[in-house]
Amino acid sequence: MSKLSKLRAKNLELARKAVKESVSPDLFVINVINNIEELQKAINTLTKRLREWYSIYLPELDKEVSDNEAFVRLVLKKDKKALFKDLKINNTMGADLAKKDVEPMLLIAKNIDNLTQQIRELEKYLETTMKEYCPNLLTIAGALVGAKLLRGAGSLKKLALMRSSTIQLLGAEKALFRHIRTGAKPPKYGYLMQHQLVQKAKKTDKGKAARALADKIFIAVRIDFFKGKYMGDKLLKELEVRFK
Amino acid sequence: MSKLSKLRAKNLELARKAVKESVSPDLFVINVINNIEELQKAINTLTKRLREWYSIYLPELDKEVSDNEAFVRLVLKKDKKALFKDLKINNTMGADLAKKDVEPMLLIAKNIDNLTQQIRELEKYLETTMKEYCPNLLTIAGALVGAKLLRGAGSLKKLALMRSSTIQLLGAEKALFRHIRTGAKPPKYGYLMQHQLVQKAKKTDKGKAARALADKIFIAVRIDFFKGKYMGDKLLKELEVRFK
Repeated sequence: MSKLSKLRAKNLELARKAVKESVSPDLFVINVINNIEELQKAINTLTKRLREWYSIYLPELDKEVSDNEAFVRLVLKKDKKALFKDLKINNTMGADLAKKDVEPMLLIAKNIDNLTQQIRELEKYLETTMKEYCPNLLTIAGALVGAKLLRGAGSLKKLALMRSSTIQLLGAEKALFRHIRTGAKPPKYGYLMQHQLVQKAKKTDKGKAARALADKIFIAVRIDFFKGKYMGDKLLKELEVRFK
Repeated sequence: MSKLSKLRAKNLELARKAVKESVSPDLFVINVINNIEELQKAINTLTKRLREWYSIYLPELDKEVSDNEAFVRLVLKKDKKALFKDLKINNTMGADLAKKDVEPMLLIAKNIDNLTQQIRELEKYLETTMKEYCPNLLTIAGALVGAKLLRGAGSLKKLALMRSSTIQLLGAEKALFRHIRTGAKPPKYGYLMQHQLVQKAKKTDKGKAARALADKIFIAVRIDFFKGKYMGDKLLKELEVRFK
């Protein structure tokens, strides 16, 4: 009996060790990108609310400044008078509010700004982690798109075993299945749409750019997974020359 | 022509003045409660993500501590060793992580904590505003439930012209229309469900408590809107005596 319980204890220990060691950088990458996306969503909804609220005070700002980050920065940095100058107006439809009624808006703006800062910090961490774990992918795809691809596949290993056409369409599953089901147009790209190579390409070239990009990512993740020599810069250069 | 353009200018000025002056405390209350709800949603999703992430490190904490605020506080205040003691364990299934891999989690936790602080600040502002604008409603319904009722009605004026049965069901529109359409059970309360008088009541008394509460709120908002004398304390006392 004592032998059996010793065996059991030993077994438990081994199992615990196996679980402990199953933690790979995949998990960090996936968790960080999940959190970044969650923060972005929070920032968007909070900014929408702030715009509504601030419009009691100075409705002209909401109309003039469509970029969210710029809006929050202006609310934080400048008072009503300074904003009058910026907006080139000398009167507003907004109400004259007491300081105590403006302060809570500034509080919200301050917090949105904090969240934005935090995204930057998380992005830095993501880059550091990926630089060690999958430097080629990082160089070619960038931190955000690379992390989304990795999450879409489930792990670096799974991503490394995918065909480049699959990589090209990661993140476009909905459109892909709609295509298969109903014969609608097939998607040209998924997460790769957010890559600046694809964004900068002319409308007619976007599909081509996505395909070329997926090819390079295909090579990059294989090098990363099988611990080959770093050649991200070379791959990226080839792409940039082609789509100049 | 000059006369006409003068008239136009005068008219514009009057219109602008009317718009400026149409801003009532209703708008503040509605905006604050909207923002508070948005923040709460953000906190909930971020905490869910933090739980997932932290579980790589110390999965036992997620299981043991179900309260979100407590979870975040523990993550922030205590390191792994201290948490071992709290959880009464001496080993974990979680991985041993380097400091740089734990820090981004703490960053998220810190931000969630900030957002929680901010909700408190906004609640304080909400109370100050309501104390001036609708002190009786504030006393009877509390800041959060009171603000939601006001938002549900659209303004204090509209709320003051509602019947107490309508007030009782504000926030339960979906259930009410389902009742009318399909003959399902009618709802007993909407936002009032969140009031502690209803929450504390026995299950069989909840409907009765909501009705009594709605009656008092009905009186309170009329006093507030028609600028009557403050008697919130008296009304609240009557309620509390009845549901002791």
